[in-house]
Amino acid sequence: MDFSDTICAISTAAGNGAIAIVRLSGPQATAIAKKVFCARRPGFDIDSQPSHTAVLGTISNNGAPIDEVLLTVFRAPHSYTGDDIVEIGCHGSTFIQQQILQTLIANGARMAAPGEFTQRAFLNGKMDLSQAEAVADLIASTGAASHRVALNQMRGGISTELAHLRDELLKTISLVELELDFSEEDVEFADRSQLRTLLNNIGAEIDRLVKSFSLGNAIKNGVPVAIIGEPNVGKSTLLNAILKEERAIVSDIAGTTRDAIEDTINIDGITYRFIDTAGIRQTTDTIENLGIEKTFEKIGRAAIVIAMFDAADTAAKITASLSEIETRMADDAALIVVLNKCDLHNANLPTVSSPKMLGQVSISAKNGNIDSLITLLTSKMHQQNTDDVIITNARHYNALLLAREALDRATDKLRNNTETDLLAIDIHDVIDNLGSILGSEITPDEVLGNIFAHFCIGK
Amino acid sequence: MDFSDTICAISTAAGNGAIAIVRLSGPQATAIAKKVFCARRPGFDIDSQPSHTAVLGTISNNGAPIDEVLLTVFRAPHSYTGDDIVEIGCHGSTFIQQQILQTLIANGARMAAPGEFTQRAFLNGKMDLSQAEAVADLIASTGAASHRVALNQMRGGISTELAHLRDELLKTISLVELELDFSEEDVEFADRSQLRTLLNNIGAEIDRLVKSFSLGNAIKNGVPVAIIGEPNVGKSTLLNAILKEERAIVSDIAGTTRDAIEDTINIDGITYRFIDTAGIRQTTDTIENLGIEKTFEKIGRAAIVIAMFDAADTAAKITASLSEIETRMADDAALIVVLNKCDLHNANLPTVSSPKMLGQVSISAKNGNIDSLITLLTSKMHQQNTDDVIITNARHYNALLLAREALDRATDKLRNNTETDLLAIDIHDVIDNLGSILGSEITPDEVLGNIFAHFCIGK
Repeated sequence: MDFSDTICAISTAAGNGAIAIVRLSGPQATAIAKKVFCARRPGFDIDSQPSHTAVLGTISNNGAPIDEVLLTVFRAPHSYTGDDIVEIGCHGSTFIQQQILQTLIANGARMAAPGEFTQRAFLNGKMDLSQAEAVADLIASTGAASHRVALNQMRGGISTELAHLRDELLKTISLVELELDFSEEDVEFADRSQLRTLLNNIGAEIDRLVKSFSLGNAIKNGVPVAIIGEPNVGKSTLLNAILKEERAIVSDIAGTTRDAIEDTINIDGITYRFIDTAGIRQTTDTIENLGIEKTFEKIGRAAIVIAMFDAADTAAKITASLSEIETRMADDAALIVVLNKCDLHNANLPTVSSPKMLGQVSISAKNGNIDSLITLLTSKMHQQNTDDVIITNARHYNALLLAREALDRATDKLRNNTETDLLAIDIHDVIDNLGSILGSEITPDEVLGNIFAHFCIGK
Repeated sequence: MDFSDTICAISTAAGNGAIAIVRLSGPQATAIAKKVFCARRPGFDIDSQPSHTAVLGTISNNGAPIDEVLLTVFRAPHSYTGDDIVEIGCHGSTFIQQQILQTLIANGARMAAPGEFTQRAFLNGKMDLSQAEAVADLIASTGAASHRVALNQMRGGISTELAHLRDELLKTISLVELELDFSEEDVEFADRSQLRTLLNNIGAEIDRLVKSFSLGNAIKNGVPVAIIGEPNVGKSTLLNAILKEERAIVSDIAGTTRDAIEDTINIDGITYRFIDTAGIRQTTDTIENLGIEKTFEKIGRAAIVIAMFDAADTAAKITASLSEIETRMADDAALIVVLNKCDLHNANLPTVSSPKMLGQVSISAKNGNIDSLITLLTSKMHQQNTDDVIITNARHYNALLLAREALDRATDKLRNNTETDLLAIDIHDVIDNLGSILGSEITPDEVLGNIFAHFCIGK
């Protein structure tokens, strides 16, 4: 891709609307607009038009008018991309949108590649890579929680946090590298105990971000909830009650649900991905020797496991099942015990407890009496603070894991008093990995720049 | 509907896009924007923000940020509606669009009714009714010709023409009514021979517009083309060749096409509605006594009739058919004679002629050899000058017919020297009918206003 080109694209949703926006960005944006646009106001000259102003006029193709449009000019660098931008607000017919696009292309613009406006914004330093990634997340977000997290990231939530960590490390590495310059003199510019404290603090912060990924991923892609239990305990009926529609086929015949059905629902702004599983069969009292691997897999991947039992089951049977289920669950997953068919059995209900248990509720899925379950289910997510900086992006997660590994190596070297140059390599590795999240290149020049900024070598 | 409300709506096409526009129009537009929008630039005050300028900032709902948006202010009367308008350019997620809309409504805006922005533009005198109607036509147009006609109408093509006619009539009626004021004195302010010439000229202009409706309607709704001929002559094969897809079921069994199939195709910017008809059966040599009424109906409604014959047919048979077909055709419809199956018979082809005939072509529908037909077909529409003012709207057409009737009555009264007050009523009727196209109310005040404007009563 050539970023000196002027690009154009229809920026509003596809199809007919009242209005549509065609955007033009690049060094030739106003020159191309000049060729196709004639303002209604006499004496208009796009070259003297101030930035961030709109003007009414006609867009034409070789003299044939296409539409009466509103043209808005944004001058570099005060635009989304950082280049000159011309926005053309036209009547929203697909025909007109296409005609305008073709006219712009005929006059020297190039059709933009997906995300190319944002890519230019990044390349022009209007935003860092994590912010650019958040733009796509923001547009894709369908619930309040994923929207909030993406908006926070776009507004620089992660950037600020990581920039702070990088700054600390850059200050340190410049001192460490100064020692290398004076290595024959055996000086120690960087206080080793301060360095150890710094690395510990940064490690703790990286750990917090790494840990936030399971929440961030759940918010972005939906919280995976597995509904498990013996055949005919009412799993599909419960899923239908939650989804409030007859998605799963319900019958009295055990084993009706052959395949795992997945569906999503948005409760209080958070998306839950409910996974209805095939009933765990061949069970006698416990689920010990069952081997329905698919269901076990789903248990392992779920953030919340809803274990359904019949209200007539005994506490002993349930407790035995739970201990088996918990061994299959992820470390930070939560377990909800549901006693179903309380419309049939509502006396002497068993009470159980288990380490990962969030709580126990009695419901009647058939009668749609499931409010207590919904309350318990959503309480788990409501405990989470989504105002903190949360990692939702697997690329960031992987970079943080690599940064953490490099940090561990650096800490080891510090502890073992290894050669300073090897320590510097590991700290650089931490900086590079954190920097890769923001898309900032760490060059020796940058390190050098930091030395000059904080020290005066002539002193 | 209360037009003092402030209305809001998502103005771009439904669905996710890169960006979307939410519009706010009415006296409270900036006041509502002030409550939900915080500019990034310090010291920003929407009340002192000049019209037609855009500013970056955050839109929030009770302090919770919804999106980073570009807000553009248009001050009354320099806006589309003529009221204050605030346009909010947001990230194009459906969730964000809905959130912004809900926030605006929570802060005092009302959801706009369909077309209400344009309705306000009309009520505020930003455009007349024919222009307002053209906005909808423009957005709905899918081809170059319908787009051009709608754009011309929106830019005031019809308005200018009718306003000119109305002005002439208003000047005249003011003179005629002045005579009524001085009726006892038996003066004649309006020269009767000039009046007769004026009415004739206006009548001719109205006739031209009325006549343009068949073209206008064809451009707007597609040119109706009927393909007729005996069973198995190849009508469906021809339709498929034109549509370049297997829309009609083709077989060697006569009568395969049971229902009239309708399909549209855009050739050189003009939409053609091809009507494939059931073959005209029970034919011996001529189609005289056939009685397939549906097909005859379609002949009557078609702007172009393609009469298909077998290349092996005799000139006598074809000529007899043509004279029957022409009696069923509309007055201004054109006839194209097609000799099909020229791949089988290509020697001694008959040559025919007929009053409405545009031409005769030899084709092979089966081999897709139909270029000569397409050229002849499109030549009919290319002869038409679509740069003239063309009526595409049935309401305008009906109003013009009523105006023409009133004009005829006025001309009669003028000829018969009927009482001036009765003549005035008919001329008023012409003015009102022409005015109804533009949505301008003719009130006695307006007539009065015209007298004062052109005359000084004190003199």
